[in-house]
Amino acid sequence: MPQPSRLLVNTGTGKGKSSAAFGVMGRAWARGWKVGVVQFVKSEKWQVGERKLASHLGIDWHTLGDGFTWESTDMGETEARGRHAWDVAAGMIGSGGYDLVILDEVTYIVRYGWISVEPLVEVLQARPARTNVIVTGRYAPDEIVAIADTVTEMVKVKHAFDQDIKARKGIEY
Amino acid sequence: MPQPSRLLVNTGTGKGKSSAAFGVMGRAWARGWKVGVVQFVKSEKWQVGERKLASHLGIDWHTLGDGFTWESTDMGETEARGRHAWDVAAGMIGSGGYDLVILDEVTYIVRYGWISVEPLVEVLQARPARTNVIVTGRYAPDEIVAIADTVTEMVKVKHAFDQDIKARKGIEY
Repeated sequence: MPQPSRLLVNTGTGKGKSSAAFGVMGRAWARGWKVGVVQFVKSEKWQVGERKLASHLGIDWHTLGDGFTWESTDMGETEARGRHAWDVAAGMIGSGGYDLVILDEVTYIVRYGWISVEPLVEVLQARPARTNVIVTGRYAPDEIVAIADTVTEMVKVKHAFDQDIKARKGIEY
Repeated sequence: MPQPSRLLVNTGTGKGKSSAAFGVMGRAWARGWKVGVVQFVKSEKWQVGERKLASHLGIDWHTLGDGFTWESTDMGETEARGRHAWDVAAGMIGSGGYDLVILDEVTYIVRYGWISVEPLVEVLQARPARTNVIVTGRYAPDEIVAIADTVTEMVKVKHAFDQDIKARKGIEY
């Protein structure tokens, strides 16, 4: 019987939640794993470095809004993009084709009320034995923490931003 | 006037201290930065993934014991290796040739009493304006925290090891 896959959660208000996930991405690549990443918060400025690295390493990458065509419905466009990204993520996990799927900042789609926590729990619990998942973001829902194997809270002890130092390219984005 | 370089510290007993540093390593690579890594805790099993990735990305890497020839002195071999790794790290930082230097688990050489904290503080404070430094490891000394720009404590909320699940290749090492 295969060893069960892991669910890791990086939460808290400190730094390093996404960086730690991308560190594991590199480690997984080194092991020859098939890795997929879905970013639930879109930003042109932040996180472009990770995407460039992922592209260089042949890692599948989906950022909120990729391949999304807006058609007016009763929900707002931002919410519709969030739900679309979740559908992509659920498809990646359910496919059985990945050793690691990173759901970067997925907690926000629950926080914003775009997706209720139940479908997340359902997809995460039904993940294939092959497919490890890392969830990052502030405010990890209790229901996700409850089913996770490893949960780390990143706690801010001290932050350069508090001292009015501008984000530095390479370190911060 | 150049923006001053940053000193980041990832400490605490939770997961993700080194992973977050290696996530930043990837981001820095994507920005075209010159990166150096010194690992102060040697392990054949752990962290080989990061070294493989670093090698692939053309990042300078030194692990405790690399290039070290043991000559009997009044200190133990382990201590001598630790001091040698610190000399390599101090040389990297002082050279001015790096945009980012990662001192992975450097806190242990202080914890174990191989190096006092003063030379660390001295080298870190005298770092070139170009050279950002990330310090990782449990028990970050107060003197390092005091001079850091950003300090994050990784707090264990829940850990798979507590539940007797074996470390899984790719995720844990």
